[in-house]
Amino acid sequence: MARFDELRIFSGSGNPELAAEICTYLGVRMGEATIRTFPNDNIFVKLHESVREQDVFVVQSLGLPLSHHIMELLILLDTCKRASAGRLTAVIPYYAYGRTDKKDQPRVPITARLLADLIVAAGADRVLTIDLHAGQIQGFFSISVDEMSAMHLLLEKIRTWDLRDAVIVSPGLGFAKRARNVAEALGLPLAIVEKRRREDGVGPVEVLSILGDVAGRHCILVDDEIATAQTMVRVAELLMAHGAREVSAAATHPVFVPGSAERLRSSPLKRVVVTNTLFVPKDMRWPELSILSVAPLLGEVIQRIHTGVSVGALFTEGHKRLGRW
Amino acid sequence: MARFDELRIFSGSGNPELAAEICTYLGVRMGEATIRTFPNDNIFVKLHESVREQDVFVVQSLGLPLSHHIMELLILLDTCKRASAGRLTAVIPYYAYGRTDKKDQPRVPITARLLADLIVAAGADRVLTIDLHAGQIQGFFSISVDEMSAMHLLLEKIRTWDLRDAVIVSPGLGFAKRARNVAEALGLPLAIVEKRRREDGVGPVEVLSILGDVAGRHCILVDDEIATAQTMVRVAELLMAHGAREVSAAATHPVFVPGSAERLRSSPLKRVVVTNTLFVPKDMRWPELSILSVAPLLGEVIQRIHTGVSVGALFTEGHKRLGRW
Amino acid sequence: MARFDELRIFSGSGNPELAAEICTYLGVRMGEATIRTFPNDNIFVKLHESVREQDVFVVQSLGLPLSHHIMELLILLDTCKRASAGRLTAVIPYYAYGRTDKKDQPRVPITARLLADLIVAAGADRVLTIDLHAGQIQGFFSISVDEMSAMHLLLEKIRTWDLRDAVIVSPGLGFAKRARNVAEALGLPLAIVEKRRREDGVGPVEVLSILGDVAGRHCILVDDEIATAQTMVRVAELLMAHGAREVSAAATHPVFVPGSAERLRSSPLKRVVVTNTLFVPKDMRWPELSILSVAPLLGEVIQRIHTGVSVGALFTEGHKRLGRW
Amino acid sequence: MARFDELRIFSGSGNPELAAEICTYLGVRMGEATIRTFPNDNIFVKLHESVREQDVFVVQSLGLPLSHHIMELLILLDTCKRASAGRLTAVIPYYAYGRTDKKDQPRVPITARLLADLIVAAGADRVLTIDLHAGQIQGFFSISVDEMSAMHLLLEKIRTWDLRDAVIVSPGLGFAKRARNVAEALGLPLAIVEKRRREDGVGPVEVLSILGDVAGRHCILVDDEIATAQTMVRVAELLMAHGAREVSAAATHPVFVPGSAERLRSSPLKRVVVTNTLFVPKDMRWPELSILSVAPLLGEVIQRIHTGVSVGALFTEGHKRLGRW
Amino acid sequence: MARFDELRIFSGSGNPELAAEICTYLGVRMGEATIRTFPNDNIFVKLHESVREQDVFVVQSLGLPLSHHIMELLILLDTCKRASAGRLTAVIPYYAYGRTDKKDQPRVPITARLLADLIVAAGADRVLTIDLHAGQIQGFFSISVDEMSAMHLLLEKIRTWDLRDAVIVSPGLGFAKRARNVAEALGLPLAIVEKRRREDGVGPVEVLSILGDVAGRHCILVDDEIATAQTMVRVAELLMAHGAREVSAAATHPVFVPGSAERLRSSPLKRVVVTNTLFVPKDMRWPELSILSVAPLLGEVIQRIHTGVSVGALFTEGHKRLGRW
Amino acid sequence: MARFDELRIFSGSGNPELAAEICTYLGVRMGEATIRTFPNDNIFVKLHESVREQDVFVVQSLGLPLSHHIMELLILLDTCKRASAGRLTAVIPYYAYGRTDKKDQPRVPITARLLADLIVAAGADRVLTIDLHAGQIQGFFSISVDEMSAMHLLLEKIRTWDLRDAVIVSPGLGFAKRARNVAEALGLPLAIVEKRRREDGVGPVEVLSILGDVAGRHCILVDDEIATAQTMVRVAELLMAHGAREVSAAATHPVFVPGSAERLRSSPLKRVVVTNTLFVPKDMRWPELSILSVAPLLGEVIQRIHTGVSVGALFTEGHKRLGRW
Repeated sequence: MARFDELRIFSGSGNPELAAEICTYLGVRMGEATIRTFPNDNIFVKLHESVREQDVFVVQSLGLPLSHHIMELLILLDTCKRASAGRLTAVIPYYAYGRTDKKDQPRVPITARLLADLIVAAGADRVLTIDLHAGQIQGFFSISVDEMSAMHLLLEKIRTWDLRDAVIVSPGLGFAKRARNVAEALGLPLAIVEKRRREDGVGPVEVLSILGDVAGRHCILVDDEIATAQTMVRVAELLMAHGAREVSAAATHPVFVPGSAERLRSSPLKRVVVTNTLFVPKDMRWPELSILSVAPLLGEVIQRIHTGVSVGALFTEGHKRLGRW
Repeated sequence: MARFDELRIFSGSGNPELAAEICTYLGVRMGEATIRTFPNDNIFVKLHESVREQDVFVVQSLGLPLSHHIMELLILLDTCKRASAGRLTAVIPYYAYGRTDKKDQPRVPITARLLADLIVAAGADRVLTIDLHAGQIQGFFSISVDEMSAMHLLLEKIRTWDLRDAVIVSPGLGFAKRARNVAEALGLPLAIVEKRRREDGVGPVEVLSILGDVAGRHCILVDDEIATAQTMVRVAELLMAHGAREVSAAATHPVFVPGSAERLRSSPLKRVVVTNTLFVPKDMRWPELSILSVAPLLGEVIQRIHTGVSVGALFTEGHKRLGRW
Repeated sequence: MARFDELRIFSGSGNPELAAEICTYLGVRMGEATIRTFPNDNIFVKLHESVREQDVFVVQSLGLPLSHHIMELLILLDTCKRASAGRLTAVIPYYAYGRTDKKDQPRVPITARLLADLIVAAGADRVLTIDLHAGQIQGFFSISVDEMSAMHLLLEKIRTWDLRDAVIVSPGLGFAKRARNVAEALGLPLAIVEKRRREDGVGPVEVLSILGDVAGRHCILVDDEIATAQTMVRVAELLMAHGAREVSAAATHPVFVPGSAERLRSSPLKRVVVTNTLFVPKDMRWPELSILSVAPLLGEVIQRIHTGVSVGALFTEGHKRLGRW
Repeated sequence: MARFDELRIFSGSGNPELAAEICTYLGVRMGEATIRTFPNDNIFVKLHESVREQDVFVVQSLGLPLSHHIMELLILLDTCKRASAGRLTAVIPYYAYGRTDKKDQPRVPITARLLADLIVAAGADRVLTIDLHAGQIQGFFSISVDEMSAMHLLLEKIRTWDLRDAVIVSPGLGFAKRARNVAEALGLPLAIVEKRRREDGVGPVEVLSILGDVAGRHCILVDDEIATAQTMVRVAELLMAHGAREVSAAATHPVFVPGSAERLRSSPLKRVVVTNTLFVPKDMRWPELSILSVAPLLGEVIQRIHTGVSVGALFTEGHKRLGRW
Repeated sequence: MARFDELRIFSGSGNPELAAEICTYLGVRMGEATIRTFPNDNIFVKLHESVREQDVFVVQSLGLPLSHHIMELLILLDTCKRASAGRLTAVIPYYAYGRTDKKDQPRVPITARLLADLIVAAGADRVLTIDLHAGQIQGFFSISVDEMSAMHLLLEKIRTWDLRDAVIVSPGLGFAKRARNVAEALGLPLAIVEKRRREDGVGPVEVLSILGDVAGRHCILVDDEIATAQTMVRVAELLMAHGAREVSAAATHPVFVPGSAERLRSSPLKRVVVTNTLFVPKDMRWPELSILSVAPLLGEVIQRIHTGVSVGALFTEGHKRLGRW
Repeated sequence: MARFDELRIFSGSGNPELAAEICTYLGVRMGEATIRTFPNDNIFVKLHESVREQDVFVVQSLGLPLSHHIMELLILLDTCKRASAGRLTAVIPYYAYGRTDKKDQPRVPITARLLADLIVAAGADRVLTIDLHAGQIQGFFSISVDEMSAMHLLLEKIRTWDLRDAVIVSPGLGFAKRARNVAEALGLPLAIVEKRRREDGVGPVEVLSILGDVAGRHCILVDDEIATAQTMVRVAELLMAHGAREVSAAATHPVFVPGSAERLRSSPLKRVVVTNTLFVPKDMRWPELSILSVAPLLGEVIQRIHTGVSVGALFTEGHKRLGRW
């Protein structure tokens, strides 16, 4: 039974295509709203339909320009809250600042927690997101968080590849545990790339080394996001230098900063698969890039949140794991 | 007596020149910090000196690019809070979103309140600001706000002008009360421009009319901010058309969106005076624009906040009114 | 669809007649409760019917004796909250302390914000009110506020008057913007009374002057409230002295402190129209005073809040503007 | 060491004489402030001296007119908070609504908790009070409460009376435990009056009976407050009817509603002793009423709070118990 | 009408028998969950069914081992909250730490308030409990508390006893008021035991004395809980020494610390009646101990909370008083 | 400069030896307090000295019995807060529930966040801790957290071992990043043990494999804590089976559940080094176990927190890294 009135989806300017796909999945009309930026950079929002007592989902992916998208999300939330939304869920397919999640040096922020506090201050009652950089970010929120994973989508794609002598490679130690889970799910071995700083007489240099066997193998790099693609390309080159047969890559979030697409395209990477948690502009797409849609996943979860049906049941559905890896 | 340890000033990238002037006034060194924006648009902050138990003032003016400057302020506050600052004051010479301070139509945000909540959520203990668009914005904060006015600076400048047959003109009804205070302080009469929407058969048009005498007079327009300068230039033209001898303008905040400086320069306005609450780039300055510094005012108030000396005493100091007009 | 169980109206002692009219409009029975004041001045409340899970509206107008009515409202809210009301809306037709909404001198309170905090602390989930002194007071609340306007009621009355050569007069600069909106709605010109302090050799005196034409005209004073009526009567006399044909007045809130009714009755004001947001005792009514009922407006909005139907749709309904002017 | 700057005392209109006595005890000047009530019942406060960073104590006793005194306290607190007081202590010699501290019937408020929330919402950092009706009210506050007792003052007075064959009498079961403590301190026996409702055929009547021996004895009634004095006078008459030699009474708080003084004066009570936690007007005093001053007690505690010296050490000082009985 | 989806009961390990009885009363299945304690003493909870949007009641009685049961309750609440329970009610038949409810000496905690804060921090929306040690503990919560009484159950049992010449005895002054209510309900007289500390030359000793007549009577001791049973047994012996015919005891909560059952069994107490708010292990039961079930009471209230039907109506139902005595 | 009065240390019963060592390092006397557990399991605290305005540090390590130690910490904090401590720092050498820091399956708690909320609810202003299981747990707190590392102590010990052909081994993927940091600091290679679940026809079994070279090497296992020691012993056996020369182990926290010490002692582990963040009972110590003291580290940081001197400066002091690894 739905505790709140009609389900209503509004989209920020982060990834309106994804929001539209979600609406299509759900069979609902996109909520009408004006979102404009005035010459003085003030973001102005006006909803064109009542959200009073309704079950409102604000979809905003936190890609570039980042500060603008964050402020837009917060203002959208404030607008819906003051317009008496019955319940307000921030749907954030890609949660930014995930790597600023701890103080490992003095006098730095924990921006991932700050962002959580801002979202709550702006009026969100719940958050729905995909593949957080660290699962602990769930605990940064005092409100309920549904974190889903797009790993099963990547896996479906990977399974279509040539997996003979394949090996899952974690491009760093931080992703090792989740890479192991991917390897386990595919029945493949695991290799891990270790990055270490060494002094070379001139200054510190980063040295990469590989734990595990890669020679003659199809190396499949997995990570949660691709931003500058610098590490990923360096790792791909290293793997080739160590005799890899070919190298592919899979990641949930295509942050794709300027220059990254070109860097990937001209790298040894044979193919790259990502999802559409972030919008990838036309000029950043190339034939070997596959973009899988998370809209059915988000749509399904929104439907369940709305009707009060278990989301946890999705965590392991058939052979798929849709919850956190 | 200062309850907190050393006074420490950090500056965001909004108006570092102003922050530097404040430091000079106070005779303190600017706090050292790295503030950089990564390719993925993440703003990263690292303080290079301890702020533990200290009395920290973060100076950030909320000009363009606005969302970036807001996020930078919030992250700076979070950094200082988590670095155990003794007390944390956000010094915001220009507070943005001041015109989004009420719901006068359905389903719009109250962004000025949202911004207050974000600043508190990020860890500010106090706020110091200048000439809020509406004094009620003070009440949007649960924490203490010291709102100062730069009107006395503008007045000092205006007093150097030819004030024979001068009249203070409020370019709109919203500023009428403060324009009256300016007129009263200068012993000049007041005129008010009324804006009204009328139907002209095709659609609604805005019609300006003038309450009060302006013919043959030196019309001095006063306002809190100049953003697009469109209204101000239209009003100047109207005043000239109504026989004004000459038209000048004074405003605290030079928001100066792209195109506005050129618009002002080519208008009937003989001279414009503003302050440096916002940074005015070189290419937006012209000979008839005077920029007065609020650094001594802010410096003095910071000194008093730090040492626990009355700020209210400044509200009326000699013939000057430094508090809200 | 109503998210909460039955709609339930309770009334404080501020204006039970209005509450009863609202019940009649809604076709519901007034909630039964004992509200008594003990000899030790303790206000005691006991509800005589269950409010568990229900949609409770507490109607209390904040007129004289003011502190008593405020405390009564807060205790009523606490009672309903602890009795497990499903949702609790404070219906405050007249919100007091609206003029204490900013610090324009040092060391004064912002009582309008304090009052908002008290109402939230006592347990209100929402507020419904009429013609706040300043729209920004909406932003003093962290909870949702529905502010309606009674201006359309006053306008309907004004339209029955002789409007040949009429002019809308704002008795001060603070109300100028809303007076312009009234003038615009009626297609009438605007005049504004400016109050200024001058030294007359003995001490400061207040001098009134008029911006705009009033000679030979029917001057219609509009304001949000009439409390002592001193300014309004002085302005009426000034207008007559400047050759006005006749003077009328319209205001939403009849605060009517002791002596004010007599002052109005013996003034040049030909007629006065107010609403019943506050109770006007018999001995303060005279033939030229019209009192219009806001009960249908409040009743309609309560109905919509209860059933989750758009209130914003009322903001402009036909030719009427029911939302903030 | 004092963590905050100068100690500063402000007084509401509840009991300015007591506040003045406290200032005398502390050797400080009373803080200057304007507190006035406008014709529209709005309470306006303006402090005439800076409280920035200072250690501010607002003294307000919550006697009649009660709602007015509560609002005045809250507005004073808000004023001091927004004027940047370093620390803000509400000194409430008599805390009102102490008897509305639980829900012992459905749909009644817990006003003593509500009042605590209001005081915190208004900005108090600490509370200092005397002889709460129930010690648990301390726990209604999230902030620190120093509750002192004036029982030792009453005891000093009682010790000057003829205590041969004396008995301490609790006028009800609610005060029995504290009456025992008084009896224990004086080495006297205890008697308790039990009130019970009985049906007498017409309706419920209250029947009083006595547990313990009173015949031929000097009965000393002790209670925390005297409000209407009805119960106390009825009990005194009952005690005389049971052969008491004489009856005296001691209570901390002279709430003394209109008519109560006359009732006491014409009762069998030989003598009554109270303190000045509440102001007793001239016409409510009579020769057999002794009023003891709590100013030295409050002054001493304020001094200790200010300088960070143990208040707990006062709880048992020599033979006196100054903390909760 | 139920505002939330299905009613769902989960039980901590405090008293699963009671929880099961409640389920039986309600005709619902007990919610399935794993609650286990790992070797490192970490309590782990996993719910085996969805609680999304449901009306969840977590039943946990706070008996021995106390800290374990408290932590288990808090973790259960956190689990349900993060699993998106629609509403979360903590059902705490016995609320611990009720005697640590005020600071009657310096530098002690108010643990009953702390516990309330912990329960709220963990996510409870409401609390349902029985016979709090002090009714004021309701006010320690900012959330709604339904406090019921089991006194009517004890009374039903007492009425089956031989009540000729019976007297209700309060074993201390703190329970005197509620003992009076019991006496009133039964039409019996009241006696009160007074405990006093005296110096005997060696050190302080506690001396008990009796107010009221007990000789030749059936003395029925009533209290809210029996923990060590030391006072109760001492009082029983005292009553026998004062000529009581026989002594019985009734209390709501059988805290029954180790050794207490043996102490009661071998005491002069003829019979003892308690309820099952706490689990009484087999080896602590003896023939003269009656244990009455509060399951129907709690079940009925849970049903009413779920469906939004008045609980207050139960406070006095027929001749029974189910609300606070 | 110290903003608060005297530094004051109180210790819970978790590890009083460590607290005493800290006092010795600081040259202060341990704060006197009674902490006792009553027969009804109620923990009672009473401080025997004033903490008013003082800088209070409550030292409590969260070892077994865990729930008891948590409640004791919370009650100690509440006591100090209500006794008007100037500032209250919870010193938690070992923070429990660190592994319950995310929802990686449906309907489980995030107890590490809950614990943070409880500590804040109880009144802590700051937290000081060592080697959190995940650095993100810092972000679970809204208050400031100083997380130090004891890794440098372990390193000093390891450097005294025979490091020829040594390799640092991470016993799991979760610790891989920090193990790399250890390896980097020692200039040693890294190996990682991968745990994977496989089906063996009967059910899932855990299979361990090793990434990196271990044959003929001195394998040094590093981890943050040793609880059951089961994984560590299995890994040690695996390493020996893979030809390791010898195996040693280093970990910060000796959680050492019953049976773990015996398990370690009889394992292939040649030597184990831990710290005293948790108390290791006599019967759990054996000759090859070294216990290093964190008292100087905690003492130094407490001193710096008290005097407002940079703690961050310690993060990298000389060649040591005392901050998070």
